[in-house]
Amino acid sequence: MKFLHTADLHLGKIVSGVSMLAEQEYILTQITQIAEEEQVDALILAGDLYDRAVPPADAVKVLNDILVKWNVELGIPIFAISGNHDSAERLAFGSQWYESSKLYMKGKCTSQFDGIPFMDAEVWLVPYHEPAIIRQAFADNSIRSFEDAMQAVTKQIRSKWDTSKAQILVGHAFVSGGIPSDSERQLAIGNVDRVSTDCFDGFTYTALGHLHHPHAIRHPSIFYSGSPLKYSFSEANDHKSVRIVELEGKELISVTERFLTPKHDMRIISGTLAELTENLVENPDDFFQVNLMDEGALIDPMGKLRQFYPNILHLERKKQTLKETQDSFEEIMKKDDLELFGQFFEHVNGTELTETQKQKLADVFEQARKEDAE
Amino acid sequence: MKFLHTADLHLGKIVSGVSMLAEQEYILTQITQIAEEEQVDALILAGDLYDRAVPPADAVKVLNDILVKWNVELGIPIFAISGNHDSAERLAFGSQWYESSKLYMKGKCTSQFDGIPFMDAEVWLVPYHEPAIIRQAFADNSIRSFEDAMQAVTKQIRSKWDTSKAQILVGHAFVSGGIPSDSERQLAIGNVDRVSTDCFDGFTYTALGHLHHPHAIRHPSIFYSGSPLKYSFSEANDHKSVRIVELEGKELISVTERFLTPKHDMRIISGTLAELTENLVENPDDFFQVNLMDEGALIDPMGKLRQFYPNILHLERKKQTLKETQDSFEEIMKKDDLELFGQFFEHVNGTELTETQKQKLADVFEQARKEDAE
Repeated sequence: MKFLHTADLHLGKIVSGVSMLAEQEYILTQITQIAEEEQVDALILAGDLYDRAVPPADAVKVLNDILVKWNVELGIPIFAISGNHDSAERLAFGSQWYESSKLYMKGKCTSQFDGIPFMDAEVWLVPYHEPAIIRQAFADNSIRSFEDAMQAVTKQIRSKWDTSKAQILVGHAFVSGGIPSDSERQLAIGNVDRVSTDCFDGFTYTALGHLHHPHAIRHPSIFYSGSPLKYSFSEANDHKSVRIVELEGKELISVTERFLTPKHDMRIISGTLAELTENLVENPDDFFQVNLMDEGALIDPMGKLRQFYPNILHLERKKQTLKETQDSFEEIMKKDDLELFGQFFEHVNGTELTETQKQKLADVFEQARKEDAE
Repeated sequence: MKFLHTADLHLGKIVSGVSMLAEQEYILTQITQIAEEEQVDALILAGDLYDRAVPPADAVKVLNDILVKWNVELGIPIFAISGNHDSAERLAFGSQWYESSKLYMKGKCTSQFDGIPFMDAEVWLVPYHEPAIIRQAFADNSIRSFEDAMQAVTKQIRSKWDTSKAQILVGHAFVSGGIPSDSERQLAIGNVDRVSTDCFDGFTYTALGHLHHPHAIRHPSIFYSGSPLKYSFSEANDHKSVRIVELEGKELISVTERFLTPKHDMRIISGTLAELTENLVENPDDFFQVNLMDEGALIDPMGKLRQFYPNILHLERKKQTLKETQDSFEEIMKKDDLELFGQFFEHVNGTELTETQKQKLADVFEQARKEDAE
């Protein structure tokens, strides 16, 4: 059995005001080609099909069209779940009809997880869920964390699975130790959204969504496919892919990356305004973050750059190298207003306050304190 | 062949700040009972399944659940189209899968209308469409009005239909001469949104949605089912129903109204505050418009009434019978400020300005004019 694992399509996503929909259609066509070439037996979509709970109508059309292509026209079974960006209810609409053609779309977690028998395997769909959802569904008040919830779910699954078969879990979660990028939405403050890898002990292959780096974790049977496109400049150095997973009977025999080539790459380039406008970099219509290395004032650098690089998404000006003083809370509390402001000024401008500036600032603070006291 | 015709569910509708969803679930259960009792061969939903393009998630769930009930559990074929309140794209999602269980959901008009063979009939689904949609789809620049568009659509249908079969059209449109209520959204300014009855010449039964009165037009083969619930007080005197339609071979043999009883009726009651709070009307938890007949000031009448009638949606104070002087624009222009205000005062209060009031008002106008001149 051979399947293709992808996730985090984020259809309808807008990056720096620019719709990614045309890029997404382009990459979906590439995924179709790979699925056909590889003659996969199934496709896995591990959540975040849309970028938001109420996606724009044209994103709805793109998802419908690609699912028709894969499932109806090419006859490929699909296992799909909702991610934290999707609306579980909206994605669940119609799922009762899809099953007849082996499109398994699970939007909402319920109290019962049932395996879907497929070739030599059982497939378990575990949509994104906050702990409260599982606490309520399982009527178990001891479930407080994401870890508790996933442990409870997989414990139930283990109590039901057929050990003579390969066990595939499709999930959408943040596994401890995983490397996030800037384009996932945080699930919780701090690290309480993490689940440990041992939640997935015993599964032949765990097909995850949520983290966008294709190698967000290293584990022999737990994989993020990564998003098929870069959605932030923190992913500029990623090479996006889909995973082709092969099983023989109940054994996992290979996990291959099939690389994707976007219509427009997302890249970071650096140089002075003169350098970048005199010697164009390759593929100047890619999506760029431009780090301008010029010092001092520039007149309309964005306007000048856009003539050559029409798809600049972000412009950064050179920063002086800063003293790497990460003050502790206690150290910060010891400093007075003037010192703190001085530090902020230096962080933003790259230069220290002059004596005149310091004096003026001291006057302002003095004045403010007086008014406060009155 | 026997089918049930309904339309204008408007799931998720909010009337005067109150969600109708529980009422809608209640009435859908009643429609299910009727469908079962009548052992219908099909259900027709002639548009406006939702109240808005992006319905709330709980309305999405209600529609999914009732379609599962009707189509999957009871095995009743369904013919449904989008209305002007629905998003054609969103409603079309998944429709390719629904067809395998005879749920025919058409969200968008295309260049081709195809009949769906069903028992002794062909069913033609014609979703709501603005003229521009058909003008573009048919690549025919002469299509300018709603009438042109519907004529073009039905002309194409007539060129393809099998005259040995009954012909059923499911549409969502405003037929000339139809009686609107306050709860439909206008399709256009003036009367340009109307289509004539002869658009539907030759059809055995035309199942329409849009107008909410169950007898919005009188015609031997063109019917609005009306909405299953009252959505405005202009419908207070309606008796809502669904239509049970019987055909024998290609002949229409009966059109029956099966009446619906809402969980809470929508009614208009009149009386003084004392009358209404001392002698409660029947079913005091219905949705009420209360016309208060008291003269003069009342302290918190809504608060007092709500103790007895928890679901008041609208309160009106008695109006004196007014002189029916509908002044023409020219006549209004001749009047001075004092006369105009006097007329407004009379309209609101039911009494004329006293001489003292007139004098005070004249002073105010004089003062305002002086300040303007300065």
